[in-house]
Amino acid sequence: MIKAEIITIGDEILYGQITDTNTQWISAELDKIGIKTVRKSSVGDTEEAILDIFSEASQRANVVIVTGGLGPTKDDITKKTFCKFFDAELVVHPQALADVTAFFNKRGRELTGINLGQAEIPSNATFIQNTMGTAPGMWFEHNGVVFISMPGVPFEMKGMMDLTILPKLKDHFKTPVIFHKVIRTIGIGESYLAEMIESWEDNLPCNIKLAYLPSMGNVKLRLTGIGENSDVIENQIESEFAKIYPTIQEYIYGYGNDEIEEVVGRLLIDKKQTVSVAESCTGGYLAHQFTKVSGSSAYFMGGITSYDNTVKINQLGVKPETLDTFGAVSEETVREMSQNVRKLLGTTYGLATSGVAGPNGGTPEKPVGTVWIAIATENQTITRKLTLGGFREQNIHLTSINILNLLRKLCL
Amino acid sequence: MIKAEIITIGDEILYGQITDTNTQWISAELDKIGIKTVRKSSVGDTEEAILDIFSEASQRANVVIVTGGLGPTKDDITKKTFCKFFDAELVVHPQALADVTAFFNKRGRELTGINLGQAEIPSNATFIQNTMGTAPGMWFEHNGVVFISMPGVPFEMKGMMDLTILPKLKDHFKTPVIFHKVIRTIGIGESYLAEMIESWEDNLPCNIKLAYLPSMGNVKLRLTGIGENSDVIENQIESEFAKIYPTIQEYIYGYGNDEIEEVVGRLLIDKKQTVSVAESCTGGYLAHQFTKVSGSSAYFMGGITSYDNTVKINQLGVKPETLDTFGAVSEETVREMSQNVRKLLGTTYGLATSGVAGPNGGTPEKPVGTVWIAIATENQTITRKLTLGGFREQNIHLTSINILNLLRKLCL
Repeated sequence: MIKAEIITIGDEILYGQITDTNTQWISAELDKIGIKTVRKSSVGDTEEAILDIFSEASQRANVVIVTGGLGPTKDDITKKTFCKFFDAELVVHPQALADVTAFFNKRGRELTGINLGQAEIPSNATFIQNTMGTAPGMWFEHNGVVFISMPGVPFEMKGMMDLTILPKLKDHFKTPVIFHKVIRTIGIGESYLAEMIESWEDNLPCNIKLAYLPSMGNVKLRLTGIGENSDVIENQIESEFAKIYPTIQEYIYGYGNDEIEEVVGRLLIDKKQTVSVAESCTGGYLAHQFTKVSGSSAYFMGGITSYDNTVKINQLGVKPETLDTFGAVSEETVREMSQNVRKLLGTTYGLATSGVAGPNGGTPEKPVGTVWIAIATENQTITRKLTLGGFREQNIHLTSINILNLLRKLCL
Repeated sequence: MIKAEIITIGDEILYGQITDTNTQWISAELDKIGIKTVRKSSVGDTEEAILDIFSEASQRANVVIVTGGLGPTKDDITKKTFCKFFDAELVVHPQALADVTAFFNKRGRELTGINLGQAEIPSNATFIQNTMGTAPGMWFEHNGVVFISMPGVPFEMKGMMDLTILPKLKDHFKTPVIFHKVIRTIGIGESYLAEMIESWEDNLPCNIKLAYLPSMGNVKLRLTGIGENSDVIENQIESEFAKIYPTIQEYIYGYGNDEIEEVVGRLLIDKKQTVSVAESCTGGYLAHQFTKVSGSSAYFMGGITSYDNTVKINQLGVKPETLDTFGAVSEETVREMSQNVRKLLGTTYGLATSGVAGPNGGTPEKPVGTVWIAIATENQTITRKLTLGGFREQNIHLTSINILNLLRKLCL
């Protein structure tokens, strides 16, 4: 197994002033070519910290990928520190000089001394072209370990990886094949799911691993297989998955990168159906879940956010008696909301939410987290009561996920 | 100087399948109380990797903060590995048991064996309550080094940090007195702001530092003073801020943790005014910005998400001729939308958005990122054209921020 370590250099990442998106992207790309990341680290712009992590990483990994610290200013010391680590010296690289000169010429800017330094690389480095910026990448081989250095600017790093480094890594290392299958579930907690499939998990072949990836309102199962032939592993994973599929089928809403709102959108497009929403407790968030998907105008007509009861009555036509008798958070109210929004906007489905999002506004009968949802179609209106927790943002999010999943089941 | 290391445990982070947002947040919080992060690391769910990083980190840092690997399933081994590292054993903690039982009871769900394990913590751990989930946090002291273990779920981790761990760290390490003042601006880019206040920044006393914290649509300035007496530092920072206030006043919308939607909400409450929204391109997101604030029902009446033109005509009463002549994305359309939603819902202000959110749907005259916004009052309707970029999510977010800031100025 080829092991990688990814190192990010920069005070601004260490102190939390900027978000590091490089590390996740690099590890996902390495994973695809069968190189396993075994550790990720961030250190600051100090020589001691950088030397320490270089020497540690080179003892654990076959390839060490470093981003950051290649800028022209004084606080960027990665290149100098590589020289010290390899006992090398900085030399001007002709292609790097040509590139940085062309970069400035093209922008009509003068090449100053500080930027000329960008053309220098350690004497033992293989130059890697940066087609999107001025700091070159570098490839080193040292005591059997590959070191790669790239700038921290995400699009420059990605360009280098795609164009040069990933192909070069594939070529350099004889890598095993890794295959992932991600199964996305809704409506069942991680621990219940785990109990349900425990004996299956225990009997998985040793080259297949299972991971649970829970996030708010859903749990992803990831099967990872390692081997030498991608077809063989894929077939093996699919046949293992087939054994458990009937047991968990009702909770599966998608695979891979599918989001629930995208899955629902595709179903609605397939069936040429449309949807409208009448929101109280979700207050626009449910409409946003639909409309954040590009192309949603094909099935999402619109909605009414009836936060105040006057809007429930005047815009949605909910009967004042219903609100008086049962209250805004009630089965009867969401039933009328869903039916009326469906009729008003002329859609296949009408969705409605009403609940106590919290943190205030709860009563003994309707504590915070009490939510009613409804979906009206031409022939029926389905309602559900949800009992959620005490957190406003969560309650809004979970209500949306629940009604989207209910709609998904209706669309199937 | 108190040094911290932050460790993330989990294969899903190592392989790049989920984004780690915890590490950045934790390091930024530590920075605020004067604890300096010296390294960040991620390792997988394997005992050897976890033991290695624990022992390395404990030699470099005064406090080691660990997140992840506390779920109830088999792949989560952090707790067991802590036991091995400290030579401790897992014991049921009475408060943890009471909490996990209450958590399940409240949701009407059965407490199964696998979840009972959540009530166990290593015998040498100090229990830290998780008010938002079932996995307890833990505080260890070992050879003079503090170890902290928290679940990887961001809102559970943040709840624990705010409520227990940050105060406990301040107390334990007797950190120096640090005072922060965060000034929040909208409507000016980082580099323009920096140029505008350059000479003031250069002349700040050496115990006061300035940081620029840009995020989508706004820039925060953070002044940090270090000293021995909090009143002295606070006064010093306020007097420095007073020098620059007149220059940047027009861009300031709030301080500290103020969000634009909260600032607007407070203004509306103060003036006893109300608001309604008619959304096209923001598709419910603007309503959600209002309603995610607890107590927003005092001023937010509701809205109409008129995604389809039929909804603009039927529910909002936009004239078909307006749509035919000028198109949905036009000053004339948002003007009618804002005026009509204001009248229909009987509010002080009516807000409207319409634009090409992208990534598709642009034309030469109205490219992706073209957005019109409007605010109607009893006496006037104000409109603005925004020229945004090519990214759907960003365009939706920036449109909301822009109209909220326009409303803020009107409310002043």
